[in-house]
Amino acid sequence: MKITRYKHNSDFSYTLGMTLTIELLRCRPETVIQVYISPRAQESEAMQELRALCGQRGIPALESEKAFNILSPKGNCFVIGVFRKFSAPVRRDCHLVLVNPSDAGNIGNIMRSCIGFGITDLAVVRPAVDLFDPKAVRASMGALFHMHFTYYDSFAAYMKDFPDHNLYPFMLRRSRPIHEVEFKAPWSLIFGNEAAGLPDDFADIRPASGALCSSVLIPISGNIDSLNLTIAAAIAMYEVTGRPQTVRR
Amino acid sequence: MKITRYKHNSDFSYTLGMTLTIELLRCRPETVIQVYISPRAQESEAMQELRALCGQRGIPALESEKAFNILSPKGNCFVIGVFRKFSAPVRRDCHLVLVNPSDAGNIGNIMRSCIGFGITDLAVVRPAVDLFDPKAVRASMGALFHMHFTYYDSFAAYMKDFPDHNLYPFMLRRSRPIHEVEFKAPWSLIFGNEAAGLPDDFADIRPASGALCSSVLIPISGNIDSLNLTIAAAIAMYEVTGRPQTVRR
Repeated sequence: MKITRYKHNSDFSYTLGMTLTIELLRCRPETVIQVYISPRAQESEAMQELRALCGQRGIPALESEKAFNILSPKGNCFVIGVFRKFSAPVRRDCHLVLVNPSDAGNIGNIMRSCIGFGITDLAVVRPAVDLFDPKAVRASMGALFHMHFTYYDSFAAYMKDFPDHNLYPFMLRRSRPIHEVEFKAPWSLIFGNEAAGLPDDFADIRPASGALCSSVLIPISGNIDSLNLTIAAAIAMYEVTGRPQTVRR
Repeated sequence: MKITRYKHNSDFSYTLGMTLTIELLRCRPETVIQVYISPRAQESEAMQELRALCGQRGIPALESEKAFNILSPKGNCFVIGVFRKFSAPVRRDCHLVLVNPSDAGNIGNIMRSCIGFGITDLAVVRPAVDLFDPKAVRASMGALFHMHFTYYDSFAAYMKDFPDHNLYPFMLRRSRPIHEVEFKAPWSLIFGNEAAGLPDDFADIRPASGALCSSVLIPISGNIDSLNLTIAAAIAMYEVTGRPQTVRR
């Protein structure tokens, strides 16, 4: 196949790097088309594992410099995996919901935290960054391959699919501090865009089913405006799932 | 003065962007040499505040495209502040300690979390990224201007300055889960490099003064190797300072 720079409408994406490509081969081998190994790569235990994983699945492992010139011009990457984008829709479980996230590195970092805290289901409301962007895949450190995710065109469409989810939008309006909130499963932890946050009207949502909507804030000092989105999402997930004394799903 | 791309040995650094430059003018006006305003900038309330702050302090606000071509070639920035690097050494307070951090965006993001959770004192062990790198300044969202910070050539040199600090290295070796640890002030929360973490021997440190050293981990699922450094540091700071029921300094 012809290697081209990643495009959002492409059927394929790439893992740049050895560890990430091994994680792809372990978790989602059925999606892998081929693997490129740079002629400059050193032999190593990881390289042996990579070749073994490719061999077991009959995945071609090709030596070629060309793919690296196109996909990793900085030259700090010696292994590339080419994989078909896959579908793994969110389930009737607890969710993280990102409304209009715009940064590929951030969504990757957030998926890494999700898997760290055992939250495997991510809903994304458009317009939004592409979580198959190789930058997102890389920042996820392979967490993407463990996630379930669905893109929605609006938050209303998301609520239609999960009418019984209790909604916890993270925002300042009419919010309670996070440690005073009891998160009732099935919950949705909802975060807005990096720069703009959530629109004010998220505090007023009343789910038709009688599920809850309760806005939440993470208390911070007055000397900064807000926490970084990746940090706020991680603290929310840590608080809800990570501490033994909090309510677990 | 002549504008050149940022160098680590320069006496000056830059704030790229309106909000960041206003924060600089509010918090550290004595360090500001001059402000550049792009001829393409629109008038706005923020611009009026910027001009007023410059006026009050007699700081020149110059219209020039040239500085933007050099410092922000992508063209998404309309205000630049030029400021003298300043010194604000760590005090005998609780500390965050970063050993060999390597990424400018990360250290900026971590400073933003520090200020969010009221931790104002940061020690950095070399080799380490430069926290005056404009990328770090930008990612800090101005938190740098509220921080106290000192660079050390070794962790031993840090301990010599603060022999009575109780040390909490975040690592896997001989560690207890974070929610079981009682953090005793004055504490130092210690984190290693993004890729390598802390060297194993941090678990064996015995401060000469009789202060504690107790290694700590943030429990995560087996499907990822570790949390991102910025996430781990933020969760530690949240746990130690943010929750009402934890020990406060």
